Amino acid sequence: MGKAHSYGYRVAPMLYQLPVDINVAAIAGRDAKGVESAANNYQIPRWTTRWQDLIEDPNIDLIDICTPPLTHSEIAIAAAKAGKAIICEKPLAITYAEAAAAAKAVADANVPNAIGFNYRRLPAVSLMKKMIDDGDIGEIILWRCTWLTDEFADTATPFDWRFDRKIGGSTIADLGCHVIDLALWMVGDINRVNAHSTTFTKFRSSPEGPKEVTVDEASSLFLEFASGASGTLEVGRVGVRRPCDMLIEINGTKGTLIFDYSNLNELKFGSSSEDIKTYGMKTIRAEHTTHPFSAHWWPIGQGVGYGSSFVNQIADWFATWPKGSWSPDFAQGARVQAVVEAGENSAKTEKWVSVKN
Amino acid sequence: MGKAHSYGYRVAPMLYQLPVDINVAAIAGRDAKGVESAANNYQIPRWTTRWQDLIEDPNIDLIDICTPPLTHSEIAIAAAKAGKAIICEKPLAITYAEAAAAAKAVADANVPNAIGFNYRRLPAVSLMKKMIDDGDIGEIILWRCTWLTDEFADTATPFDWRFDRKIGGSTIADLGCHVIDLALWMVGDINRVNAHSTTFTKFRSSPEGPKEVTVDEASSLFLEFASGASGTLEVGRVGVRRPCDMLIEINGTKGTLIFDYSNLNELKFGSSSEDIKTYGMKTIRAEHTTHPFSAHWWPIGQGVGYGSSFVNQIADWFATWPKGSWSPDFAQGARVQAVVEAGENSAKTEKWVSVKN
Amino acid sequence: MGKAHSYGYRVAPMLYQLPVDINVAAIAGRDAKGVESAANNYQIPRWTTRWQDLIEDPNIDLIDICTPPLTHSEIAIAAAKAGKAIICEKPLAITYAEAAAAAKAVADANVPNAIGFNYRRLPAVSLMKKMIDDGDIGEIILWRCTWLTDEFADTATPFDWRFDRKIGGSTIADLGCHVIDLALWMVGDINRVNAHSTTFTKFRSSPEGPKEVTVDEASSLFLEFASGASGTLEVGRVGVRRPCDMLIEINGTKGTLIFDYSNLNELKFGSSSEDIKTYGMKTIRAEHTTHPFSAHWWPIGQGVGYGSSFVNQIADWFATWPKGSWSPDFAQGARVQAVVEAGENSAKTEKWVSVKN
Amino acid sequence: MGKAHSYGYRVAPMLYQLPVDINVAAIAGRDAKGVESAANNYQIPRWTTRWQDLIEDPNIDLIDICTPPLTHSEIAIAAAKAGKAIICEKPLAITYAEAAAAAKAVADANVPNAIGFNYRRLPAVSLMKKMIDDGDIGEIILWRCTWLTDEFADTATPFDWRFDRKIGGSTIADLGCHVIDLALWMVGDINRVNAHSTTFTKFRSSPEGPKEVTVDEASSLFLEFASGASGTLEVGRVGVRRPCDMLIEINGTKGTLIFDYSNLNELKFGSSSEDIKTYGMKTIRAEHTTHPFSAHWWPIGQGVGYGSSFVNQIADWFATWPKGSWSPDFAQGARVQAVVEAGENSAKTEKWVSVKN
Repeated sequence: MGKAHSYGYRVAPMLYQLPVDINVAAIAGRDAKGVESAANNYQIPRWTTRWQDLIEDPNIDLIDICTPPLTHSEIAIAAAKAGKAIICEKPLAITYAEAAAAAKAVADANVPNAIGFNYRRLPAVSLMKKMIDDGDIGEIILWRCTWLTDEFADTATPFDWRFDRKIGGSTIADLGCHVIDLALWMVGDINRVNAHSTTFTKFRSSPEGPKEVTVDEASSLFLEFASGASGTLEVGRVGVRRPCDMLIEINGTKGTLIFDYSNLNELKFGSSSEDIKTYGMKTIRAEHTTHPFSAHWWPIGQGVGYGSSFVNQIADWFATWPKGSWSPDFAQGARVQAVVEAGENSAKTEKWVSVKN
Repeated sequence: MGKAHSYGYRVAPMLYQLPVDINVAAIAGRDAKGVESAANNYQIPRWTTRWQDLIEDPNIDLIDICTPPLTHSEIAIAAAKAGKAIICEKPLAITYAEAAAAAKAVADANVPNAIGFNYRRLPAVSLMKKMIDDGDIGEIILWRCTWLTDEFADTATPFDWRFDRKIGGSTIADLGCHVIDLALWMVGDINRVNAHSTTFTKFRSSPEGPKEVTVDEASSLFLEFASGASGTLEVGRVGVRRPCDMLIEINGTKGTLIFDYSNLNELKFGSSSEDIKTYGMKTIRAEHTTHPFSAHWWPIGQGVGYGSSFVNQIADWFATWPKGSWSPDFAQGARVQAVVEAGENSAKTEKWVSVKN
Repeated sequence: MGKAHSYGYRVAPMLYQLPVDINVAAIAGRDAKGVESAANNYQIPRWTTRWQDLIEDPNIDLIDICTPPLTHSEIAIAAAKAGKAIICEKPLAITYAEAAAAAKAVADANVPNAIGFNYRRLPAVSLMKKMIDDGDIGEIILWRCTWLTDEFADTATPFDWRFDRKIGGSTIADLGCHVIDLALWMVGDINRVNAHSTTFTKFRSSPEGPKEVTVDEASSLFLEFASGASGTLEVGRVGVRRPCDMLIEINGTKGTLIFDYSNLNELKFGSSSEDIKTYGMKTIRAEHTTHPFSAHWWPIGQGVGYGSSFVNQIADWFATWPKGSWSPDFAQGARVQAVVEAGENSAKTEKWVSVKN
Repeated sequence: MGKAHSYGYRVAPMLYQLPVDINVAAIAGRDAKGVESAANNYQIPRWTTRWQDLIEDPNIDLIDICTPPLTHSEIAIAAAKAGKAIICEKPLAITYAEAAAAAKAVADANVPNAIGFNYRRLPAVSLMKKMIDDGDIGEIILWRCTWLTDEFADTATPFDWRFDRKIGGSTIADLGCHVIDLALWMVGDINRVNAHSTTFTKFRSSPEGPKEVTVDEASSLFLEFASGASGTLEVGRVGVRRPCDMLIEINGTKGTLIFDYSNLNELKFGSSSEDIKTYGMKTIRAEHTTHPFSAHWWPIGQGVGYGSSFVNQIADWFATWPKGSWSPDFAQGARVQAVVEAGENSAKTEKWVSVKN
């Protein structure tokens, strides 16, 4: 994530006219060797192993948190108290209570705050949101997403921290939080969740013998939106030859939108208002100068990648410097965490669970 | 369905060497005009409005049931008692109890019996099954299917019998039964089901004023297989510009298979045993002469359509005439109905429901 | 081809209301054993080794010629003289002179005549033609086609008659004639042709030692249309894992149409008159009941295959029985042959060659 | 192009460990306002309207030429004489003679020199080259490319300098040079060329009345490679809803490779050595850490865009600083120009034209 954030800070000022010069002044990390090397790679002049050093420095205006999830809320709350603007990688915390505390801290401190749900700023995803807001698909009735990776697909992969629920995040949380953010953003509040989780390889080898895997390898969720729409979400890390394949489809009363991350510069769109003679769906090339972000990048047809989302979010956020108001913010981070937690609880209890709102 | 079955009887003897001449001798239907017209279209020499006439005719060896679902089991049981071979369109019945009764009747009568889950005999679907049996994807862990149509997508479509649960089938039953058959066939028994159903347009216009829609427009199901595999199924009839789009993906411990009905001559396959240099999935052109059924059809690259499945099932079944044993049979029809019914019950109770086996 | 034609005769009367009963009365072939077996497979009551028997039979109204190309024109001319309606498989002849003679014979005899350029009657190809005629892409300026098979791809395939230009057709003729028919049909007359042919495996093994391959394995052509449009055609039989892949794209002043035979129920369409917000191309599902032929087949989304083109052409032709006028007719067959011959000559002379019109 | 090059200089040092710090010291341009603005956008400390200032500055080690094509060779020759390393945007010159002179100048001066055929460094294109070199498709026999844009598609676009052959480049040169570079790189020398060019909108409006368009709107070429392989290239700027669509297919004796720029992180591959059971082509996700460049970017499945090619070429070139030897170099730029010129001449003379080598 450090690489992606550095890329964002480095490229945004070149492609966008920002009202402020961005100066990445210092980096903190637990391991001296690692943080020194990162500082060199990303050409950051100063490094430290105490993150508190950055928060205590009056010359630093903004704290960007890319540490492991367990530490997010603590750092964020400290930074808020110090009056810093804050960008925090997802998830905001590993429990809803902590996420809500961090959201309260930034509200109390009244500092600009953002959470790194970067997929929102892929041009095609932004266009999807814009088309929904423009009424192009009418009222949303069905939302679905499948996100498959092959991270855990090899049953011979030995046990490590990712398989230990005390340290590693659930698959619902790790993969799910990004797309739950998108669902809340595009469709609105989620009232209730029903989830089913499975772990197929229940034990994995370690030097001390087989260890029990305590995270879910795959989970499915039903989502009941406040609007009356229904959602289906499946996340899994055991899909052979599925490197990082996220597919989102939204069906509205007047149209359908489909985003396939494996072809991220395209957006599929079907509309019932189009002539039946051309019945079908259109593959929008989401790179036209009139599309979100695209005028700042390359001519249509050339394509951007994952990295562009980090550039675009930096550009959006800093465009309003120093006041904010940034989006998605910590409040949204907490809202996502509430859905994640409801999903994790439902998988345990095998019942519908209401989302804390 | 009469058209598709007639097509099967007409084409199968031309593409396959069958041990028997098929002679479609008579057709029955409730409406005299309609059945006379069908008899003319399909060049069937005799017609009647009493289906009993066919069962009572000693010269008729086989009864093919294409009537509305409500009547399937009654006709099937009568035909079984008369010692006829029986081909019955799906679903076998509209309750599990009736389906089980029909299955018992053919078992008692020891007559060849088959149910029209024709998608099994699309070449690419057959190849999918064969590759699973050959171990090409290892043990199955995840099964998922999304099937979207736009039959109910227009909210202005007035009320008709399809929206009345007393007459029309649920979406779980109508779309679901075909793919539940495939799931049972490829993955094995289903132990438990959890379902969520929604109707977005709750009232539809009629000459007598708005009428309540009592069928589900969309439903999602979690499936728990006896093998330990997990399944996710979503069926919906409100997908704008989704004419009849069925997508099935199966993830195994060693590979992934994907069938997309909108390109029905292809099958996608990813294998962890292939060289990492070509990391990705292969699009199998399921028309090679070594693939199921393909040698009987056109040279590779030419493509077959939906109709081919009806031809292939007739060919398979009649290849063993007069003894049978046909597949899928009535027992399988009942097995599918048990899953459908568990799904319908779960949607009502909002709880996991065990499947009667 | 016998199989495909039989399929057409058998299925067309079932899906279409024809003004005449089609009765396939007799079949002729050189080899007694082969023709007897074909008669059995296709359930044809009478067979003979003399094609003249059929022409001499006053009870036979129509001759369908599926013999090797070398014999087409001779049989066709004889049938025309006997006053029979004629359906002839492509190509009409193996030289333009012979093709023109056959065209003259049917004109003189004033008999219904058709040539088997069946791809015209794939629904998506018919829709392509209709959209052009409707002005949906404006004036055509560019036409291109690539057709690749792997028939000759294995360099170890031994020599056989297909590699001998005296017997086997050139690749320009064999693959090219179908799509040249489409080009003439959709774009109009071709004035001049420039071609480049290559044979990569110049000798192939035979029991008598290596033999020289005298047919082209791949050829490319520039086409200059009378309208001012430009065309590019590439045909090749050495494309590994390209079973029978035909891709046609037409660019007009207002739009683009693309047909990819590997997904034959779809047609891609881009229009400059559509809102820039959805810049891109639409994938038309060419199966709507309002699309050509589709109302006679399956509900949208189910798909038809190659065989449907044979059914549809039989239906179209017999709809006007007994008078004709059929399309494409022998005159069109001769017109195609003129372009093929110009291409073959250009490949030899390495110069632009005018098409005889 | 200034934007893309700036992006390359800015991002490469972050993703790669380079042996030298890159310091973009100054920028020159004809228009004072424009160049000042560019300097600000790209954060370049110094600007000038005399390019000679940069060449005369002893502290500048490298000249990067992004000026209009007409001026490339003059600046390049001056820079070479001053002993500077040179990166020159494509094309190296607008005639072969000038290109050859520039190539001679850098050879005489023995300075590192590169030309901006950046598509080589898209990961999937690099992988294509690697797979060819590894023998994965055997000997190349067919090469084809279609590149369509819609730059000139609107017939109402008024006349401007791009339509004037004296100033604007031909379509053969503008679109063709990139892919001719790829062809020469992957397949080897081209001996002869045959071309056909067309301009459909012969006059375009201007304030002074209609003006004649003197550039080709579309051109097709046959390429005869020294190896015996055949090539077909079509470039056109009149493809409605074809924003910048480049498709390259290479058929070898053992396999096929296809690159479709609209999905630039994928590479299609078919091999005759793979089991017939999975007959078809694989879609390689060209982002695995073992694939070219990919380990420096994002995890597999995330995708890179057009910009990555500029980063990767900077990284490759500077990895060998200060000696060079860079690739593609000016000699390659001249080689490409020889093919372009042969194509332009062939289109005029309507004959095969030999390439100067």
